[in-house]
Amino acid sequence: MTHNQGPKVVVIGGGTGSFTVLTGLKNYVRDITAIVNMSDDGGSTGSLRDELGVLPPGDIRQCLVALSESDQIMRDLFNYRFAEGTFGGHSFGNLFLTALEKTTGNFAQAVRTASKVLNITGRVVPVTLTNSKLVLTQPDGSTVIGQHTVESAKIDRSQPPQLSLEPTSRLNPEAKTAIETADLVVIAPGNLYASLAPTLVVPGLGDVLSNSNARIVYVSNLVTKPGQTDDFQVQDYATEIERFIGKPVLDFVIYNQHQPSQKLLDKYARAGEYAVGFDQTTLAKQHFTPIGGDIIADSIPKLTAADQIIPRTLIRHHPDKTARLIMQAYFS
Amino acid sequence: MTHNQGPKVVVIGGGTGSFTVLTGLKNYVRDITAIVNMSDDGGSTGSLRDELGVLPPGDIRQCLVALSESDQIMRDLFNYRFAEGTFGGHSFGNLFLTALEKTTGNFAQAVRTASKVLNITGRVVPVTLTNSKLVLTQPDGSTVIGQHTVESAKIDRSQPPQLSLEPTSRLNPEAKTAIETADLVVIAPGNLYASLAPTLVVPGLGDVLSNSNARIVYVSNLVTKPGQTDDFQVQDYATEIERFIGKPVLDFVIYNQHQPSQKLLDKYARAGEYAVGFDQTTLAKQHFTPIGGDIIADSIPKLTAADQIIPRTLIRHHPDKTARLIMQAYFS
Repeated sequence: MTHNQGPKVVVIGGGTGSFTVLTGLKNYVRDITAIVNMSDDGGSTGSLRDELGVLPPGDIRQCLVALSESDQIMRDLFNYRFAEGTFGGHSFGNLFLTALEKTTGNFAQAVRTASKVLNITGRVVPVTLTNSKLVLTQPDGSTVIGQHTVESAKIDRSQPPQLSLEPTSRLNPEAKTAIETADLVVIAPGNLYASLAPTLVVPGLGDVLSNSNARIVYVSNLVTKPGQTDDFQVQDYATEIERFIGKPVLDFVIYNQHQPSQKLLDKYARAGEYAVGFDQTTLAKQHFTPIGGDIIADSIPKLTAADQIIPRTLIRHHPDKTARLIMQAYFS
Repeated sequence: MTHNQGPKVVVIGGGTGSFTVLTGLKNYVRDITAIVNMSDDGGSTGSLRDELGVLPPGDIRQCLVALSESDQIMRDLFNYRFAEGTFGGHSFGNLFLTALEKTTGNFAQAVRTASKVLNITGRVVPVTLTNSKLVLTQPDGSTVIGQHTVESAKIDRSQPPQLSLEPTSRLNPEAKTAIETADLVVIAPGNLYASLAPTLVVPGLGDVLSNSNARIVYVSNLVTKPGQTDDFQVQDYATEIERFIGKPVLDFVIYNQHQPSQKLLDKYARAGEYAVGFDQTTLAKQHFTPIGGDIIADSIPKLTAADQIIPRTLIRHHPDKTARLIMQAYFS
């Protein structure tokens, strides 16, 4: 692969946010690597981990589907969730990766085979191949164990939240190489403490990002999470991201400036969630370049079975609008 | 497809026997169509039918794997059975076909997509797309419902066993066309009343076979089934096959002449099963041409998880030896 084929791009994140960014970006870049969170332990993925001892397939599956060039039948198949019976709630794509891990004895091989079956553009790379759990240590010393539990925990923010992985995970060498050779690194939006942080705290990842020559872009979340990121503004997300990385590495932060409809905002407010605020004067003083724009999806998406891959989120990033701002950052 | 590419071959049967015949034959012929039993309702297949209302995937899956030209990883994946947890006993290939039937809304489309994913030689065609159950009506008028139940039933043989499908199934037009244009039709070995008969009694199939210009070859079973085919000799199987077809259509019957090891025979005898007998004088008087030979596998196969597709059978047909006798019949 030479630079004639465009920039080498890495997207770091969990399932949902990476799905959106990858879906948009793959129309603008060819050499794209998704580095994926491996601490998910909820829902279908959590049951498979508990019962069969496999690595978490859910976030990987979403990234594979985002990058798939297969016909719609295969994409629908991977996103299919059994609605009833023994497999009720399970995603077929998760079962596919689980059965492949069992038959090949190797999750990395399972991802490579699934990548071929789905005929993906680029690569999907687990951030680690260590089977670890996310641990949140609260200021009083108590711990919250497991991504799914952390996701719904009330986080004591009197001190900066401490997150780690148990047992200590080892950075996947493929992920390291991808970042070292990247021209552009995108940190996708996502649940800050239960999806982005577990990826960023894999030991070694922060150093690789700090030493990278790539432009590093963070795409900010659209809504706050009650009990975790209440009252957060755009720069607060950026600050936390950099705290987990260990250095102020962000070159650009992309955020939404477009006001969602009052109907949507009301719906979120009832759940304690609010649109992430921004103040242009404050943003102008940061070490990164802020890029604001209209990056939300136009309409409330109709929720189908396949849409369960993006649970509950009604205010969503628009894949193409978001990708265009990312490319603007790259070319600026 | 022209005759320059060799004969058009159809193999009719269930899962296990067809798997063996297809595995052997695909090395000698290119244009091969497996017409597959659709009344299975036991095990993994039975649960999926009961819980999700789908058509039975199990026998189709075995034929797909037999004809697959994919690398071993994909073949292993399709045969993989979950060993533990909620899914224990379920075959991944069955889930694949079930999820595809759900997403495409169409079992025939599911089989075509799986055929592409597995890169198969030839075609796998369900004998019917009607969701039916096998019904055995005993001489006293009582009925035994479902293939799995029929398989373990004691059959009153005071009159010829009556089998039908409820609701009445409709012959798949693709199966009809394949037989009408075939040069060679092979009826695979298999459970006579719970796997072959349910395929042969699909209304219309007997007429199509009777009117076919193809050479028709039946590969006889190796062991008898207690309570169902006790004391059967080779010609007894052939007679029953033709009773279900409705006419004496068999041109050749291939049978095993090689004595299995005493150790194996003893093992079977304890379960009431015996090697199918033959008498050359009797066979010489039949309307079909008997072809005897050594067609059993040399050694007791090691049973792995994937081998569960051929449950319990230790005396097996040797795929290549069997295929060679079939080709001998075709060319004689």
